Amino acid sequence: MSNSTLNIVKIGGNVIDDDIQLETFLEKFAAIPGKKILVHGGGKIATRLASKLGLEAQMVEGRRITDKDMLDVVTMVYAGLTNKKIVATLQKYLCDAIGLSGADGNVIKAVKRPVKEIDYGYAGDILADSVNSLAIKKFLDAGFTPIFSAITHNGSGQLLNTNADTIASALATAMADHYEASLIYCFEKNGVLLDVNDENSVIENITAKDFTTYRERGIISDGMIPKLQNAFDAIHKGVKSVYVGNASNLHLFQQQKFGTCLVNK
Amino acid sequence: MSNSTLNIVKIGGNVIDDDIQLETFLEKFAAIPGKKILVHGGGKIATRLASKLGLEAQMVEGRRITDKDMLDVVTMVYAGLTNKKIVATLQKYLCDAIGLSGADGNVIKAVKRPVKEIDYGYAGDILADSVNSLAIKKFLDAGFTPIFSAITHNGSGQLLNTNADTIASALATAMADHYEASLIYCFEKNGVLLDVNDENSVIENITAKDFTTYRERGIISDGMIPKLQNAFDAIHKGVKSVYVGNASNLHLFQQQKFGTCLVNK
Repeated sequence: MSNSTLNIVKIGGNVIDDDIQLETFLEKFAAIPGKKILVHGGGKIATRLASKLGLEAQMVEGRRITDKDMLDVVTMVYAGLTNKKIVATLQKYLCDAIGLSGADGNVIKAVKRPVKEIDYGYAGDILADSVNSLAIKKFLDAGFTPIFSAITHNGSGQLLNTNADTIASALATAMADHYEASLIYCFEKNGVLLDVNDENSVIENITAKDFTTYRERGIISDGMIPKLQNAFDAIHKGVKSVYVGNASNLHLFQQQKFGTCLVNK
Repeated sequence: MSNSTLNIVKIGGNVIDDDIQLETFLEKFAAIPGKKILVHGGGKIATRLASKLGLEAQMVEGRRITDKDMLDVVTMVYAGLTNKKIVATLQKYLCDAIGLSGADGNVIKAVKRPVKEIDYGYAGDILADSVNSLAIKKFLDAGFTPIFSAITHNGSGQLLNTNADTIASALATAMADHYEASLIYCFEKNGVLLDVNDENSVIENITAKDFTTYRERGIISDGMIPKLQNAFDAIHKGVKSVYVGNASNLHLFQQQKFGTCLVNK
């Protein structure tokens, strides 16, 4: 007996920042048949709001330092404004979406990042047992499509700011116990590119060994490295397949023509 | 065969504005056994945030005029910051809370208030069929405690700002088809008072006829009138009982010593 399939889609900030792109993307997401989950990042709205409120966004190595005021801002924007706009738009396209932070239904419990050289503040790290897959399965079995913002909690009343790519990967890994889970990272490029300046140079399939080679040659670099590391990590932990591609091509996913497919071998 | 009981609790702004009062209240709410729902208002955080952003809060007859920017603010604060803080705190007290706007699971669909003398902007009115009681029953049956912010949607992608008292009353009425539903309005007074300056003058039981009499005599006035009208309306539509009392006395609810009980006769 094969498990039913579950597609976990991650959408990044640049699409969220553009109302028209976002709606087009959500229409395509709504059209994916079967059980599915969406994980969304934050976009620039939180940074702009923080700036209007006189808070300075502090970033270290691409990660936000989340002090108490900034946690309020990202909770408002990610779990409030962005999440609810996405949910309302999906309802319009007859996708029965339900927005979740990690606190809702206790679906994702993180730990406050330990202070070493840097104090990241209210940043939440995901552990192996962070994802409550049974609670999420309840929502899926009841016919709902969970929409995750990147806000988690520690189980003791504290909300935490967590990396959305990491959440997507952890969700896929945990849900692979119950479903044939696929993970689909949507971003602004057509996939993993042989030539970063040529959107037609998409690598269709990539193994972990290829990844190492491409990385050594400098073909894959910067922000793509942690994304692919997360993705291969998910495959090694039981996720059936991982795709990386352009949000505007999501309709091609059903035809298996979407972006780069990470291969398990 | 009697239906199982369902308690629907409404908490107002003044408790939400005070972190310590709010946590104390939530600990008491978490301790109520059986199926339950919480509906929360907004408090002053939205008004303060709007003011910091240079938006002016416009009120007409106690109702907020919700323009596009103000809708973003109340969505951020009500459905984001306040709702998620409440959910995370309830999880701490082992209440498996899940935060919902009306868009989540399509649980409450409202209509944008028609423009007559006043354009209320993105204000949502509740209709007789607004509440999706079957979707809410799914959450309750799965063991979750729904926490409603006062944000709804129109089913076509538009979020709307809705009165929290009205949501509580509409929820109780709709859920009365499935449960022995009780509605508990928590606010800053000990109940309906014979003397507004004496917190010990609580009227323990009040009928619709008493309400008319007290109103004519001026004993009940101002903000209490729409609250009680909503409440009697709910009773006439099948809600078993309605209570009005002090949030800090919620622990007395189980002993039937809480505030004023509205009686159906």
